[in-house]
Amino acid sequence: MSNLNDLISKIDSPTDIKKMSNSELQELGKEVRNFLIESVAKTGGHLASNLGVVELTIAIHRVFNSPKDKIIWDVGHQAYVHKLFTGRKHLFHTLRKHKGMSGFPKRCESEHDVFETGHSSTSISAGLGMAKARDILGEKHAVVSIIGDGALTGGMAFEALNHAGHSNTDFIVILNDNAMSISQNVGGLSKYLNRLRSDPTYFKVKNDVENLLNKIPAVGKAMFKTAEKAKDSLKYFLVPGVIFEELGFTYLGPVNGHDLKELTIVLNRAKNINGPVFIHVLTKKGKGYDFAEKNPDKFHGVNPFKVETGKAVSVHSSESYSAVFGQTLCKLAQKNRQIVGITAAMPSGTGLSEFANKYPERFFDVGIAEQHAVTFAAGLAAKGLRPVFAVYSTFLQRAYDQIIHDVCLQNLSVLFCIDRGGLVGNDGETHHGVFDLSFLSHIPNMMIMAPKDGKELKSMMEFAFTHEGPIAIRYPRGESDDFSGVSSDYNVASLQAEILMKGNDICIFAIGNMVRTAYEAALRLKAENINCTVVNARFAKPLDEARILSEASACPHVITLEDNLIKGGFGSQVLDLLNKKNVYKNIKLLGLPDQFIEHGDNDDLFKLYGLDVDGVVSHAYEMLGK
Amino acid sequence: MSNLNDLISKIDSPTDIKKMSNSELQELGKEVRNFLIESVAKTGGHLASNLGVVELTIAIHRVFNSPKDKIIWDVGHQAYVHKLFTGRKHLFHTLRKHKGMSGFPKRCESEHDVFETGHSSTSISAGLGMAKARDILGEKHAVVSIIGDGALTGGMAFEALNHAGHSNTDFIVILNDNAMSISQNVGGLSKYLNRLRSDPTYFKVKNDVENLLNKIPAVGKAMFKTAEKAKDSLKYFLVPGVIFEELGFTYLGPVNGHDLKELTIVLNRAKNINGPVFIHVLTKKGKGYDFAEKNPDKFHGVNPFKVETGKAVSVHSSESYSAVFGQTLCKLAQKNRQIVGITAAMPSGTGLSEFANKYPERFFDVGIAEQHAVTFAAGLAAKGLRPVFAVYSTFLQRAYDQIIHDVCLQNLSVLFCIDRGGLVGNDGETHHGVFDLSFLSHIPNMMIMAPKDGKELKSMMEFAFTHEGPIAIRYPRGESDDFSGVSSDYNVASLQAEILMKGNDICIFAIGNMVRTAYEAALRLKAENINCTVVNARFAKPLDEARILSEASACPHVITLEDNLIKGGFGSQVLDLLNKKNVYKNIKLLGLPDQFIEHGDNDDLFKLYGLDVDGVVSHAYEMLGK
Repeated sequence: MSNLNDLISKIDSPTDIKKMSNSELQELGKEVRNFLIESVAKTGGHLASNLGVVELTIAIHRVFNSPKDKIIWDVGHQAYVHKLFTGRKHLFHTLRKHKGMSGFPKRCESEHDVFETGHSSTSISAGLGMAKARDILGEKHAVVSIIGDGALTGGMAFEALNHAGHSNTDFIVILNDNAMSISQNVGGLSKYLNRLRSDPTYFKVKNDVENLLNKIPAVGKAMFKTAEKAKDSLKYFLVPGVIFEELGFTYLGPVNGHDLKELTIVLNRAKNINGPVFIHVLTKKGKGYDFAEKNPDKFHGVNPFKVETGKAVSVHSSESYSAVFGQTLCKLAQKNRQIVGITAAMPSGTGLSEFANKYPERFFDVGIAEQHAVTFAAGLAAKGLRPVFAVYSTFLQRAYDQIIHDVCLQNLSVLFCIDRGGLVGNDGETHHGVFDLSFLSHIPNMMIMAPKDGKELKSMMEFAFTHEGPIAIRYPRGESDDFSGVSSDYNVASLQAEILMKGNDICIFAIGNMVRTAYEAALRLKAENINCTVVNARFAKPLDEARILSEASACPHVITLEDNLIKGGFGSQVLDLLNKKNVYKNIKLLGLPDQFIEHGDNDDLFKLYGLDVDGVVSHAYEMLGK
Repeated sequence: MSNLNDLISKIDSPTDIKKMSNSELQELGKEVRNFLIESVAKTGGHLASNLGVVELTIAIHRVFNSPKDKIIWDVGHQAYVHKLFTGRKHLFHTLRKHKGMSGFPKRCESEHDVFETGHSSTSISAGLGMAKARDILGEKHAVVSIIGDGALTGGMAFEALNHAGHSNTDFIVILNDNAMSISQNVGGLSKYLNRLRSDPTYFKVKNDVENLLNKIPAVGKAMFKTAEKAKDSLKYFLVPGVIFEELGFTYLGPVNGHDLKELTIVLNRAKNINGPVFIHVLTKKGKGYDFAEKNPDKFHGVNPFKVETGKAVSVHSSESYSAVFGQTLCKLAQKNRQIVGITAAMPSGTGLSEFANKYPERFFDVGIAEQHAVTFAAGLAAKGLRPVFAVYSTFLQRAYDQIIHDVCLQNLSVLFCIDRGGLVGNDGETHHGVFDLSFLSHIPNMMIMAPKDGKELKSMMEFAFTHEGPIAIRYPRGESDDFSGVSSDYNVASLQAEILMKGNDICIFAIGNMVRTAYEAALRLKAENINCTVVNARFAKPLDEARILSEASACPHVITLEDNLIKGGFGSQVLDLLNKKNVYKNIKLLGLPDQFIEHGDNDDLFKLYGLDVDGVVSHAYEMLGK
């Protein structure tokens, strides 16, 4: 640490912030930035978004009294500064590690974390609930939700604004507007915010009415140049934030989100306004760290890096599944002009960037709007195109109803390329993609596949575009596996499962990246003279019933293996099938238990839940009574 | 039919509308109204919403060329007039009957039904998808989505507007604004639309710029009265529909939705505008039928009624589950002041009206916004209140992610009272509540109950408020059952299943209203000397493991019975349990198959899928080899 004053070590709780002067707080901001950069460089984590809210977080804790006042961080990956100020500085070296500090607000960590977040656009709903509860309980405290401009495009944020706007409840929404979500923002709202941002009449803590009267001459002049221009002028000069005002909020802004004085004034003012208030704060993602300012996208979520160079400490050697997906899609799209790609604000995370560059007219970034993305895809498919929605498993949960109602009901050919299926590691509870096999398996008309390796992902994508009807291909976070030394069967179009090994003792049905685990476990067991059949199921729906029945019947013991919840998942479908066909024997379903899975390295988590090679081997021993 | 001209019989397709004069079309409108009233009086169905869009539908088919131009009806229950004009007049006597005409757009019915709807707020997404597909395919045709002001509060409609607004795509959104969804509308947006509605400067097909210039003097005068007033005047006079304009749409309106001439002009104009257009049409729900105009809520969806009196032909005798829910909630809320009630625009359908009247400060209608409703409930619960979200099963699908991420992850005490669980009859595919047991069962921390009768629903609600954590109580549409002659066990707090009958041949585990079916089937079998155990499971999660294991072990055959999908449902949980505990035998899972279930009377549907008493009896025979 290069801080002479070491103000940061004087902050044990938000009350300590209130004791500091303006200039001390300014200095504190610098120290916090240095701390964050050095700390996240070691542990990895979310950086750019946290650097952007340093002054905002200081101002919030200066003006409000957490935990009595309720501070809710939308998405929550920008809550590091808040964590730092609420007694958790000593935990930063454990950030996102198993049993360490979470990268998101967690109620069990601190009384200052009043609502848990992870997915986008929930904070206004939650905050309004708390504000209404306060009113009913006759309590007095502020409720403040901080939401990014990206998260604001999520439909539920609008639902909540619509409700809050006519609620007559004291409630403050702070828009942390950095003109980005994770990637650059899109949509009409984004354009609108852009115009507000570029308004020269920054918020100067004046009375609205005074402000208004002062501007009238200017408006008058502008009016008669051209009517169109007059219209614009009037709109923007007289009613900044008109959308939010129309919805019933008092709009304050835009405010420079790195000017502590201005922030303090506007927050104090908001505190004293009755009814819902919308504060528009302009921040810069990555502020104060050059590499992050220039590449906020790259520095959104980072692995450990060198502070001096901004370069990652270790570089992955093999291709990620996302990369395989992206390259394959580009290749297929070259021949098949009906292929179009959709992302909900994650072009680079999902591997769609290359496609976006090559086929801009066939690429759609719809913003953080998974519901719309799915029904938009249904509309494209209804006209005969072949839309691909590339999405993280956990975020697809948002569109469960649209998958049922708009895609599967009409049996439309939408391809869901589901990235981050299974455990995702350090992001934890809110981000693990462990529900998808369960929620997709019970939807009629849906076909579900999961590849054993990168090459099989390619085959599955090729096959998908020849199939009529909805298809999901689900693959994990991280590097793609390679079975080419073991398997030569990539004929997915047969709709068959693949037998990787034959044995008479135990039959293991595995899916997706658990095929590797099953295979390694079988090799280990073979060395002990226990012979396994290993089946790469490939299809979670429809199951390859013939092969599953014949292989299950041929072994006295059956194990299913998946990185999904056991409930409603792949193993459960296998069990249903065997029961229906009168194959009665103990089927051991291995997968994730009926609980939320914490954060940590994936290796630790797989081990913990008995889903690593050791775990499968010991389950096998147990079945054999050994 | 009392129509002298009988213009209606001259309409075989939309082209016939184009041949008619203005006055003939005006006359046609009257005939259509009479036809709808007389037809729906016989069959039941959606009335008020269809009466409201008669002229709008005429104008749409006059100006646009369906099916080349794509017409998408949001929600779809207002598409009767469209169906009438597209060759389906002869099917109206079969409306909503099994194998008859659907109450919603269906692609298999007509090439004019280009996208299927049922749930709210999907049409803008689907329409934009079609518009973008048209552009990519180099085709030329219009795309028109018609959406109600209620549906516009749904978040995905906003997501779609946000995307469409900056899309530069020719695409027309028609807001059918009747100031209602099913009940009266709520929220900031609704207030905003209200102000637009009451604007005296109705749309007069003038040039925007001219219009603007004409108004400037008035503005000038207004400006100097009071600044606040000036602000309002400027806003509303100069930029009507500013929210939609800000999002990137050309806003046209408001237009009188019952004035064919005006509608024709504005639609023609919209057709010639480049980019996205938003037309604001004002209609009256129930227009032309006095009883429906006065009670649009009551005449939203109706059973057969007498045209002269507006009274239902048959009146239900016993209480509906919704009524039991509503009364019980009022009673419990009297003692427990922490109880608050939430609805997503369905206070009367869900039985919450009485609660709303008695406890207005504890009642929240959030609009058609299930996602927000759930997270709002989570916010209330985080402050210690006991929120109850009363919702139809099929609409709760919208909030799947929020249930996981905002309620269950934090283990918050939100009570979901899920009405219309199971088959709902005539509304069909889009409305059956057959997914809920599947999608809720795999969510950690969730408790799920389903009562055998009205009295048990009461017990479950009483119990629910003593339990910490999320709970769902799921009950069917229609009249509540009454087991008081058979059972005296309503002790739900024991967390136990209830044994209604003991026998040694077959053990039937049933849940919810299928307990009656199981019980009747068992009585029938008893007469044939086949003795059944009948277990009212009560809990779909957690299962009463002890009782299920002991009863299943005591019988050679096991049947599970539910009005939910078999996949991932109650029976599937029972099978998992028995497998885990090494109870191996054939378990027959009775429930709904892996397909979408069509519309029809519930009795017909239960029979068709073998879930009536006959069906269960014959499954039992089959198991016994008889």
